[in-house]
Amino acid sequence: MPLSDKEIIARLEKLGKLVATQLLKGNPPYIEIPVRSLKNTIWDDKRKILRLGPAKARREYLDVKSAKRFMQTLLMLSLIIMARREGDYPTIRDLYYMGKHTITYVDVDGRRKKEETWDDQRESNSVIEDIEVATGILREEMGIMHDAKGKIVGNIVVRSKGYLIDCSKMGSGAYAIPPNPDRLEIVKVEADYVLVVEKDAIFERLNEEEFWKRENCLLVTGKGQPDRSTRRMVRRLWEEFGLPVYVLTDADPYGWYIYSVFRSGSISLSYESEKLACPEARFIGVTTTDIDRYKIPRNYIIAATDRDLKRATELMKYPWFQSDSWQKELKLFLKRKEKIEIEALSGHGFKFLSHTYIPEKIEKKLWIV
Amino acid sequence: MPLSDKEIIARLEKLGKLVATQLLKGNPPYIEIPVRSLKNTIWDDKRKILRLGPAKARREYLDVKSAKRFMQTLLMLSLIIMARREGDYPTIRDLYYMGKHTITYVDVDGRRKKEETWDDQRESNSVIEDIEVATGILREEMGIMHDAKGKIVGNIVVRSKGYLIDCSKMGSGAYAIPPNPDRLEIVKVEADYVLVVEKDAIFERLNEEEFWKRENCLLVTGKGQPDRSTRRMVRRLWEEFGLPVYVLTDADPYGWYIYSVFRSGSISLSYESEKLACPEARFIGVTTTDIDRYKIPRNYIIAATDRDLKRATELMKYPWFQSDSWQKELKLFLKRKEKIEIEALSGHGFKFLSHTYIPEKIEKKLWIV
Repeated sequence: MPLSDKEIIARLEKLGKLVATQLLKGNPPYIEIPVRSLKNTIWDDKRKILRLGPAKARREYLDVKSAKRFMQTLLMLSLIIMARREGDYPTIRDLYYMGKHTITYVDVDGRRKKEETWDDQRESNSVIEDIEVATGILREEMGIMHDAKGKIVGNIVVRSKGYLIDCSKMGSGAYAIPPNPDRLEIVKVEADYVLVVEKDAIFERLNEEEFWKRENCLLVTGKGQPDRSTRRMVRRLWEEFGLPVYVLTDADPYGWYIYSVFRSGSISLSYESEKLACPEARFIGVTTTDIDRYKIPRNYIIAATDRDLKRATELMKYPWFQSDSWQKELKLFLKRKEKIEIEALSGHGFKFLSHTYIPEKIEKKLWIV
Repeated sequence: MPLSDKEIIARLEKLGKLVATQLLKGNPPYIEIPVRSLKNTIWDDKRKILRLGPAKARREYLDVKSAKRFMQTLLMLSLIIMARREGDYPTIRDLYYMGKHTITYVDVDGRRKKEETWDDQRESNSVIEDIEVATGILREEMGIMHDAKGKIVGNIVVRSKGYLIDCSKMGSGAYAIPPNPDRLEIVKVEADYVLVVEKDAIFERLNEEEFWKRENCLLVTGKGQPDRSTRRMVRRLWEEFGLPVYVLTDADPYGWYIYSVFRSGSISLSYESEKLACPEARFIGVTTTDIDRYKIPRNYIIAATDRDLKRATELMKYPWFQSDSWQKELKLFLKRKEKIEIEALSGHGFKFLSHTYIPEKIEKKLWIV
């Protein structure tokens, strides 16, 4: 059950009330916020996700820098509460502007000084993330809008704002996943698995030839590096309906990292992994091994760049790439220094990807994790 | 009426037959293709669109370079015809791989030589565009897939693959515009105008608060620089249903150029303007004039970069920016060297954009063209 607006407001107000209570008691106010730094990001090997560690930071009136951050947090909190009370749906950029103003003050030496509430959106975004971790509510649930990249088609019916939306009846188009998938009621799912496709053009092609109907699956794309909404949608399909999730990307470290973001979470949003990651997602390719397995012609192969090799070396060290199969693939990539794209499979005919490659990889369990 | 697959195949085959006939007669074969260069791009002041001029290039067996281009054209033509005959929907990248192979031959001096059919996708894409201008068929109509960025919501019902899709019943999501909007049958439109929003996040916000319902409009985004499908969809709404089209972007040369692409066409795709441009589209902002008109606070204003100024100087020279209102705006921008974003309007409250700014600009005819 998604949180109601009333519950969201109550939870946000609780944080504000905490500060008010401290002040009313005459105590110096502070807020405790889990630290979102890389240092406090840990790999939970049991649950197979990246998540935040136990470290917490205290926002208080210690010095100007700390006081500013305290002010920013309360300012943003008040803006978000105001938007929810009024039924408004500001974007993260709106919140940046809405809160941006110049504070003039007189310092201890009597000098008149000016200070911006925030200088750029990185600062205001960071405060939104602080409020997310402090309250355990996603910004999407707070009604904050952002670009929504995801699309879905297949035998799934959702309800949104009272309307039933049948994603098997979108024709050549698709249902654009809303910014807050938690507000979708998933009414019916009749599919054997979820296929997440890195590239939108491949999604369009598989949709046009009704791959999802033939294979009885749900087809999703997050258009490259996925946004939070697409990840949340896929997570819900796995968590609430037990659907296996397969990820299809190019055979290069960039594609493999996209798979790992769906599966394990991302380093920068590790505090959201518990809501966004699918720790059982499977990678169905393309792999370096596929170059020989599917006899990819030499002139389809792209030489890896130094950046690719560096990225692959990094991936090899990540705890979530420690399985034998991934270590083998990454070593092979570093040895051959070769990458290929999904479309390289079209050398075997336009139907090869959808009629042979994907069904075969799933049926013969040729995925890797 | 969209062209049927049969008609598409017939038109493509016609081009191939032309060559076959020349060869069977024992004549040296050639194809004539309209030139897509900047030099052959002209501004049609009467129709208010960018379009191709009369220049044509002859592809023939003159030298190796010319013969290669001739071969590429026929190779691509055969791949596209094959895909249509088989009911396949390759992406432009698939076509690149499918046609990519190494030709070995012996030159006049008896030396064994190798030549790639094409080295990168620029070459194969360029040949696809040649076939588009030579046959007058959009690549979308040829069933060629690509990323589709557009979204639409509002009182419009379309039919695709037999399904009726009501874009007023998408809830918090949207209908993702398919790669080939010509295949959509537009069954019903009940709206006063089309609002095209540059930014997806703003689209999401306006959709969430059901702006389109309150204002009785269709809401569209092409997510920044629009793709061909979004432009084709907007064009159809204007052409077939006579809907006024309003474009909302940031106040900077990048946003203004996006407006002009919707209205007049783009330089690189001038040969498609007749199908993609909306020569009556109106710009409802944001403008430099709005900085004073809406009392935008000083600290919301962003200093223009040298690149912005250079771009604005270029825009001033384009024939489609010669109206007094645009010249005035561009001069003001170059003088003030200041830009603002749509979201800067949120300084007047989260509701200002949707309840005041947009309705007021339309009602008081404050748009510029």
